[in-house]
Amino acid sequence: MINAVPAAHPPIVVVAPDSFKGSLDAPAVCAAIATGLRRVWRDAEVRACPMADGGEGTLDAVLSRGGERRQHDVTGAGGKRRSAAYGVVAMREGPTAIVEAAQVVGITDPDGMAVPVAARTTRGIGELLRVLLDAGVRRFMVGLGGSSTNDGGAGMLAALGLALADDAGRPVPPTPAGLASVARVDASGLDPRLAQAAITIMSDVNNPLCGERGATAIFGPQKGVPADDIAAIDATLARYAQLAERTLGRNAAALPGAGAAGGVGFALQLVGGTFRSGAEVVADLIGLDAALAGADWAFTGEGRTDAQTLLRKAPFVVAERARAAGVPITLLSGAVDAGALPELGRIFAGCFALPAGPLSLADCIASTEVLLADRAEQIARLWVAARPRA
Amino acid sequence: MINAVPAAHPPIVVVAPDSFKGSLDAPAVCAAIATGLRRVWRDAEVRACPMADGGEGTLDAVLSRGGERRQHDVTGAGGKRRSAAYGVVAMREGPTAIVEAAQVVGITDPDGMAVPVAARTTRGIGELLRVLLDAGVRRFMVGLGGSSTNDGGAGMLAALGLALADDAGRPVPPTPAGLASVARVDASGLDPRLAQAAITIMSDVNNPLCGERGATAIFGPQKGVPADDIAAIDATLARYAQLAERTLGRNAAALPGAGAAGGVGFALQLVGGTFRSGAEVVADLIGLDAALAGADWAFTGEGRTDAQTLLRKAPFVVAERARAAGVPITLLSGAVDAGALPELGRIFAGCFALPAGPLSLADCIASTEVLLADRAEQIARLWVAARPRA
Repeated sequence: MINAVPAAHPPIVVVAPDSFKGSLDAPAVCAAIATGLRRVWRDAEVRACPMADGGEGTLDAVLSRGGERRQHDVTGAGGKRRSAAYGVVAMREGPTAIVEAAQVVGITDPDGMAVPVAARTTRGIGELLRVLLDAGVRRFMVGLGGSSTNDGGAGMLAALGLALADDAGRPVPPTPAGLASVARVDASGLDPRLAQAAITIMSDVNNPLCGERGATAIFGPQKGVPADDIAAIDATLARYAQLAERTLGRNAAALPGAGAAGGVGFALQLVGGTFRSGAEVVADLIGLDAALAGADWAFTGEGRTDAQTLLRKAPFVVAERARAAGVPITLLSGAVDAGALPELGRIFAGCFALPAGPLSLADCIASTEVLLADRAEQIARLWVAARPRA
Repeated sequence: MINAVPAAHPPIVVVAPDSFKGSLDAPAVCAAIATGLRRVWRDAEVRACPMADGGEGTLDAVLSRGGERRQHDVTGAGGKRRSAAYGVVAMREGPTAIVEAAQVVGITDPDGMAVPVAARTTRGIGELLRVLLDAGVRRFMVGLGGSSTNDGGAGMLAALGLALADDAGRPVPPTPAGLASVARVDASGLDPRLAQAAITIMSDVNNPLCGERGATAIFGPQKGVPADDIAAIDATLARYAQLAERTLGRNAAALPGAGAAGGVGFALQLVGGTFRSGAEVVADLIGLDAALAGADWAFTGEGRTDAQTLLRKAPFVVAERARAAGVPITLLSGAVDAGALPELGRIFAGCFALPAGPLSLADCIASTEVLLADRAEQIARLWVAARPRA
């Protein structure tokens, strides 16, 4: 507690970062920034609002503001059972489930990654939705992102009762390999409760299901789809989607976000889900606007900020909310791309990065917590000096 | 010129950095920071006050505020002639010479480094002082630092008329090797005009001439003194100093700064010079206090800031002057040592470093100019946001 500044009115600071991927989750980022701020103002009111964009960390971010964390055993992407976390939040409109695809079929699950992507399935997501329907839940916020699968959401729909068969009527497995021979889609067994459900899809990806900007072409390679297989798998998903669309009487493959989570975005929109920017939904769920009301200053950040951030990633969404609330907002990220600074400078009251000197990426990741507190402290010291004395 | 903020009163900002050693001289650092500030305030009044500590860059810093740059051929540390720059500044007290030891016997001079340190001499400094005395100059500011020599200033004194001889009365060369056999010191030929001269020694080093904290032990190794020779050379300098002190009737070897520039600090104090912190003298010469008067904000910095900086290095001295003037001062250095941050935080309104993410030292040095402008801009954007709207 060195040199803390006594203040007649300790500032109210909203801290709303995304996670620093591969390093620190968003609640921990909030805590580290708060540590730095409290070295300057012992009694600062820090409003921690961990953010997420629908991908990994969404559940933690939402539950940090309330709600109940639960676990259920479901089928993982590779076929083994795994315990998936989800949340139930009491809302005015009724109990609302927070489901994170990455908790079920996450790319960080070694069991899923151990089988080829052609054999991975999203069946577990459907199992989880069914459990929730059984429990009476009718509102779903499903975060897509960080998945290892590329099955067009067929596994999820199969678990919810959609039947997939080849031209001889034999069932085919709901995987990219199985879908290669799909010829008939039967929706007569589809869970009727889906029709009463309000499903919101949270994603930071607005790609369609197929084509050059589709799930397989853009996200397949990082999941392990061999370059030579992209065209064939893309064609398989396109045929499956056409059959499913015809059966259900609704088009979804070309909608923004259909390509999220290897096509779960398609499947959820096919059964009536609504696609929204993940960061916008999370901002609403955590009550960001209410936290910003009356605040003096705000922080946001992420592992690395570059021109992509301007495409409505979490820090951009937080900045828009802060601007609307009239609260200046400072960016503190692991790294800030120099080429994006002119644009970022329009949005943020200063863009800052973690290193205090030449530093390797590995050392930066290893010391993120300490660096965050130190940087936040120094930024706050400047803030104090810039305010004219009372 | 993106997003420049119109301001009723554009701020007055004093920019007073040291050089970023090995990368950018202090005037260039000032210019880069000004570039960043002007992206935020087109019409900011930036008062560039390049700083130095008596070592390399001192001459440039002082002359940036006025005075005449001249050159003279003198003996380099290795014996070859070289053209040394110096300055003459018109002051109320009379014309004042700015002499930088590094311009004559600098460690960056390959001709000097090509001969062993035992054969290097500071004779050229004495030659330059003599030229200035001939020109009627009686006020000298001599910057010590960045020298390659370790001759106890014997070369300089020899050029000014001090005679050094062995026990048979034969002249010995004014080098560490020559001094090994010195037995008699005769001051009868010493330039009598030195008695009328006012000599100020500028240094950031307060070591004595000899002993554990002496010039040879502390600075000898980086100049090329072999570890095995340190004790012998230290003893040689001690005997030479004792003889010279006896002859001149004054003690100087134990004074702070006697060990600066391999003992030039000793020799100049022996002939009446006064030792001062180099940064303090430079701050006075460039009129730093006048620049700070009425300013809103100040910047300082250096290549790397650590606990050493607190030992009255240039950024520390600038910070003290700024505090006295009531001007908040922000540190922007190439790197800031994390361990020193708690102390630095007491002094500076925010400590910031150049990298905007993981970065190697080489890349940091190669892009110092761009990084300085970017960081200054972002820091200024925060400054703007922290000020309540008019």
